[in-house]
Amino acid sequence: MPSLGPVTAQQMHFSEPLPLRSGATLPAYDLRFETYGSLNAARSNAVLVCHALNASHHVAGLDEQGQAGWWDNLVGPGKPLDTERFFVIGVNNPGSCFGSTGPMHVNPAHADSGQVWGADFPVMTVEDWVDAQVRLVQRLGITQLAAVLGGSLGGMQALAWTLRHPDKLRHCVAVATAPNLSAQNIAFNEVARRAIVTDPDFHGGHFYAHGVVPQRGLRVARMIGHITYLAEDAMESKFGRELRAEGLAYTTQGIEFQIESYLRHQGDKFSAYFDANTYLLITRALDYFDPAQEHGGSLTKAFEGARANQFLLVSFSTDWRFAPARSREIVKALVDNRIAVSYAEIDAPHGHDAFLLEDPRYHGVMRAYFERIALEFTA
Amino acid sequence: MPSLGPVTAQQMHFSEPLPLRSGATLPAYDLRFETYGSLNAARSNAVLVCHALNASHHVAGLDEQGQAGWWDNLVGPGKPLDTERFFVIGVNNPGSCFGSTGPMHVNPAHADSGQVWGADFPVMTVEDWVDAQVRLVQRLGITQLAAVLGGSLGGMQALAWTLRHPDKLRHCVAVATAPNLSAQNIAFNEVARRAIVTDPDFHGGHFYAHGVVPQRGLRVARMIGHITYLAEDAMESKFGRELRAEGLAYTTQGIEFQIESYLRHQGDKFSAYFDANTYLLITRALDYFDPAQEHGGSLTKAFEGARANQFLLVSFSTDWRFAPARSREIVKALVDNRIAVSYAEIDAPHGHDAFLLEDPRYHGVMRAYFERIALEFTA
Repeated sequence: MPSLGPVTAQQMHFSEPLPLRSGATLPAYDLRFETYGSLNAARSNAVLVCHALNASHHVAGLDEQGQAGWWDNLVGPGKPLDTERFFVIGVNNPGSCFGSTGPMHVNPAHADSGQVWGADFPVMTVEDWVDAQVRLVQRLGITQLAAVLGGSLGGMQALAWTLRHPDKLRHCVAVATAPNLSAQNIAFNEVARRAIVTDPDFHGGHFYAHGVVPQRGLRVARMIGHITYLAEDAMESKFGRELRAEGLAYTTQGIEFQIESYLRHQGDKFSAYFDANTYLLITRALDYFDPAQEHGGSLTKAFEGARANQFLLVSFSTDWRFAPARSREIVKALVDNRIAVSYAEIDAPHGHDAFLLEDPRYHGVMRAYFERIALEFTA
Repeated sequence: MPSLGPVTAQQMHFSEPLPLRSGATLPAYDLRFETYGSLNAARSNAVLVCHALNASHHVAGLDEQGQAGWWDNLVGPGKPLDTERFFVIGVNNPGSCFGSTGPMHVNPAHADSGQVWGADFPVMTVEDWVDAQVRLVQRLGITQLAAVLGGSLGGMQALAWTLRHPDKLRHCVAVATAPNLSAQNIAFNEVARRAIVTDPDFHGGHFYAHGVVPQRGLRVARMIGHITYLAEDAMESKFGRELRAEGLAYTTQGIEFQIESYLRHQGDKFSAYFDANTYLLITRALDYFDPAQEHGGSLTKAFEGARANQFLLVSFSTDWRFAPARSREIVKALVDNRIAVSYAEIDAPHGHDAFLLEDPRYHGVMRAYFERIALEFTA
């Protein structure tokens, strides 16, 4: 499949403060974003792509470093989300660390000293991100999106769009997501956060001024996360009990098994570029998302207002982080409200990570759904 | 059920060095142990209980601090493993931190300076522990045990007894165990070890001389472990998304959810008493256990020599750490060898932790099996 080729990120400034769910306010802020394809004359073919923990506005094509976007297999010319037909927008959320305003930027309250936000960056929720995205979409001249699309935490944002701004989109495509985190999901997030926060190099979240980074904590956090992204069986068939060297070294601190080597490598890579405060902020946004909560725990009631929209939900059989049962909860709430919903449970071996991979059945479903959406504006 | 009441730990010195699987040798060492009940005249009613990661020789009764043993609900007068009939031995493994020789004791190579073993304590395997236990049993005047019993890592030791010393026991009772660790099991162990080893207070495993303890790492390690001991559904029904306070505080470093509070508490408790090098040693022993490995990967071949023994295996439906399928692998290998095996898969909600809890069906199976063993020597 051809890729989009080189793409250029854009930056947009928003001077109006953003009121947040916590009661705090995000003052003037910047959003970094990319767009692919062309907005049609009716401005009806725009799709917003929302990112999860470790991703960005760079959804497709090649960035300045020649790196392909994180969903490049899905988004591009002739791909399931076809940029010959759709105008696709990728945006980095505030609080993240890929160009939009975040903890590593100067806190306007300390503009004189140039002190960065660090741990004082306001706590963001999925709903806050959606409100920030709405402003970007408006500034791009789009009144109504053809669709909002996201996987995992990105799927939560797509769902929140239909709850907060149901008239501003027609379709919600939410992949490998959940209506909220389970106790076990929160538990894994909390261990990862403790690893970061208790790293002496974290300095209460103000490590920037010390010229250090809590890499030890970030490594452990990433290793934990990685285990939960992979299916146990896939990990078993890929690594099993394979040793890195021939024979055992009998070492408690060194590496014996390939799986150890793999996880350490993932941890090292991640800790070299990801921001520790962003990790805390994004895992907290995951923890907080719970649209049923303000409706007495009823997801059905939460989706009452989403009737204007149509939905595609996709889950993966071996995803134990956001298992198919969690997607089915959402499907049920939609059906209860007589909302049009398509649901595909893909038998795929790769666990939660499957949403990022190229599986013919998965991509077939996505392609068919977006082709159906395209009929609405090409007809 | 009545408990044994106060029990007193004993200590035994072994001056003959213990050759280890790694090729190294454990020089003269001490084992701490407890016994309950009386050895009969024929010395045929002895049961050895092997411990898992976070346990000790203190299996039943009340120690000097008034603490009940870790399997006090199973072992005692009138209990499933009835100390009116059986002579029960609990032993702390070398390398552990509850009284037997371990990393916190003086390294004889540095007897002059009094420097402790620390990270230089030899790497132990399940087989090494079994060999150390054999010596203790012999010194207690027992030629053949009625049974060896253990759960989780303790179950691996019970299995290893039948493979290395099949004539020295008649029954193997292995609960919630596995024939080896999966890649995912190893992965969780490795993350826990990295949390400990990368804690600046670990000092390469020689923290004792610095007057510090790598508590941050131990806390994170315990939190990870704890998540894997509990069933997801049990965690959900016990904690769900319950908040600790009324309403959200919007904090990335503080506590919002009860599950966070619970995990932090478990981590704090554990890090106050458990030895960091012991954690590394014991998780490595778990990683290394793989009796099929030296038989070309065939568990059936591995158990060929175990024919003299009879087996009870027990697993728990919601245990995702050592799932029932892992116990069934062992059952299959035994059946392939025409070895007498009873197998119970208990439908219990508590995950891996279920082996420590009092479940009527589980305890019923254990009671029936030990009553059958008792017929062999009371008849």
